[in-house]
Amino acid sequence: MNDTAAASVLPAFDDVLAAAARIAPHAHVTPVLRSRSLDASAGCELHFKAEHLQRAGAFKFRGACNAIWSLDDATAARGVVTHSSGNHGAALALAARTRGVACHVVVPEGAVAAKLAAIEAYGATLHRCAPTIAAREAGCAQLQAQLGAELVHPYTDPRVIAGQGTAALELLCTQAHFDALIVPVGGGGLAAGTALSVAARSPATRLYLAEPAGAAETFASMQRGERVTDFTPDTVCDGLRGTLGAINFSMLHAHGAQVLTAGDADTVAAMRLFWQRTKQIVEPSSAVALAVVLGNPALFAGQRVGVVLTGGNVDPDALPALFAST
Amino acid sequence: MNDTAAASVLPAFDDVLAAAARIAPHAHVTPVLRSRSLDASAGCELHFKAEHLQRAGAFKFRGACNAIWSLDDATAARGVVTHSSGNHGAALALAARTRGVACHVVVPEGAVAAKLAAIEAYGATLHRCAPTIAAREAGCAQLQAQLGAELVHPYTDPRVIAGQGTAALELLCTQAHFDALIVPVGGGGLAAGTALSVAARSPATRLYLAEPAGAAETFASMQRGERVTDFTPDTVCDGLRGTLGAINFSMLHAHGAQVLTAGDADTVAAMRLFWQRTKQIVEPSSAVALAVVLGNPALFAGQRVGVVLTGGNVDPDALPALFAST
Repeated sequence: MNDTAAASVLPAFDDVLAAAARIAPHAHVTPVLRSRSLDASAGCELHFKAEHLQRAGAFKFRGACNAIWSLDDATAARGVVTHSSGNHGAALALAARTRGVACHVVVPEGAVAAKLAAIEAYGATLHRCAPTIAAREAGCAQLQAQLGAELVHPYTDPRVIAGQGTAALELLCTQAHFDALIVPVGGGGLAAGTALSVAARSPATRLYLAEPAGAAETFASMQRGERVTDFTPDTVCDGLRGTLGAINFSMLHAHGAQVLTAGDADTVAAMRLFWQRTKQIVEPSSAVALAVVLGNPALFAGQRVGVVLTGGNVDPDALPALFAST
Repeated sequence: MNDTAAASVLPAFDDVLAAAARIAPHAHVTPVLRSRSLDASAGCELHFKAEHLQRAGAFKFRGACNAIWSLDDATAARGVVTHSSGNHGAALALAARTRGVACHVVVPEGAVAAKLAAIEAYGATLHRCAPTIAAREAGCAQLQAQLGAELVHPYTDPRVIAGQGTAALELLCTQAHFDALIVPVGGGGLAAGTALSVAARSPATRLYLAEPAGAAETFASMQRGERVTDFTPDTVCDGLRGTLGAINFSMLHAHGAQVLTAGDADTVAAMRLFWQRTKQIVEPSSAVALAVVLGNPALFAGQRVGVVLTGGNVDPDALPALFAST
């Protein structure tokens, strides 16, 4: 997928508000979880936006649902296409089903069988390709050409960014003020949408992006003031291995979001701690946000901090090894 | 602990109502969880009472809290004592702390360190003893004699039974009618309390007790019409290895509760399925209730079924092995 194609129109906060109205009949308003003992451990007041309890198990449903319900009828009739072997693929498949739209997902050979089964269970058609970015993009382009299907990029699509911004919008409504808000960053769809909501609704709230130390190209991009794209991710956070999109970088750089990183060991420890205290399993890609809070106590001491827990889709066969390794 | 001592007064539904009022300032009204995909898998409408989200991670806090706040001031000043290396010990410790009551917990040598740490973290004093029932009972008796501390038995104490009945009371309030209600059974505190609430509030609802096949002495007791006590439990459900109490047997036999059993493999599979669909980790001792639903589809087809998920306290070091074994 060419991530500049969709970047011609920057989404705005009005688009987040429109997305909230558009997805309301379909998406969950997820709960905000609290834990006295986690507050005590962190030395601050933590409000966890529980997107692992969103439909299809991740915030991705918000953006996918907004994209699907933004389509005009003629476009919807031709279907949508994306490439993803993870949460976006499942989210788009489920969102498409809410409107009876055909959904095509290009998936690389070697993807986790359980994830592909989930995408198929939501009614999407899988199209296998070689495990390279070029092959994935070619697969999408072919389906676009062949079927007239609409491309819904996982994080550079303005409709997706606007949809992702609704999670922070809901969270910010639950308290008069947050000192800080933390979201994980991968491609930057959630991060950019969150920046829109923070800027419009709570400009005094500091926005932090949590990034795995083994895939910290957003950190490097922000430092350098331009997008870094040549890196090889090495992290257990499988949802955060992608490269920050161009439109996403522009929005986050303009907002002045700060990046905090955490190593995988701290992320898995945070995931395990969160489980022990709340009985919830979140993905490593979510737990990195708690890890950066625990790793930077001076930044958050005594403050009210919002944390978006992005998803809970852990490969069932991977969990034992994940927890055993700590 | 002598489980006939406390059996002189059978608790009644009025005691459950009194308990509900007594614990309201301290206990959570836990949410009722639903899952479309679990309903589809089970072929019925499942309503999960999420006691793994109760304070201290299990329904046990209800009974412990009711016992603590039932004490007169003079008794409270002398403290409470119990023996438990599991959820009841932690629950009593936390409940005692809500009233500033001293709490003594007799624990056997060899108990899981993480569990003992949790009991201590809630402010209780640990008293170690040899790992036999006789040693535990002697330890309790000594503290009762020495300090005048009040014994709070984990499941035969009428105050505890009444407190546990509040979970079903809350669940039954959420729908006009339930066809069936399922609770796990070990010592029978929750089961007996639930029977009181069902009989008073929803007598047409069938009450099922879920029991591990490897500790199915309640099943045997119900079949025989008298309490079976000579058995050696062999199950992964560590909260359900105890023997049904005498008072508990009487109440459950009188109610006509039916027992359904599940093997450990099915229980762990149910625990894993519940995690995948809801991102929640419940104990094997809770998952056995879902396992009996899945194992007896004809009994529940198309019905509205309440399930009390009793707790979520899994030893962090045990989870990998538990899931790896399936």
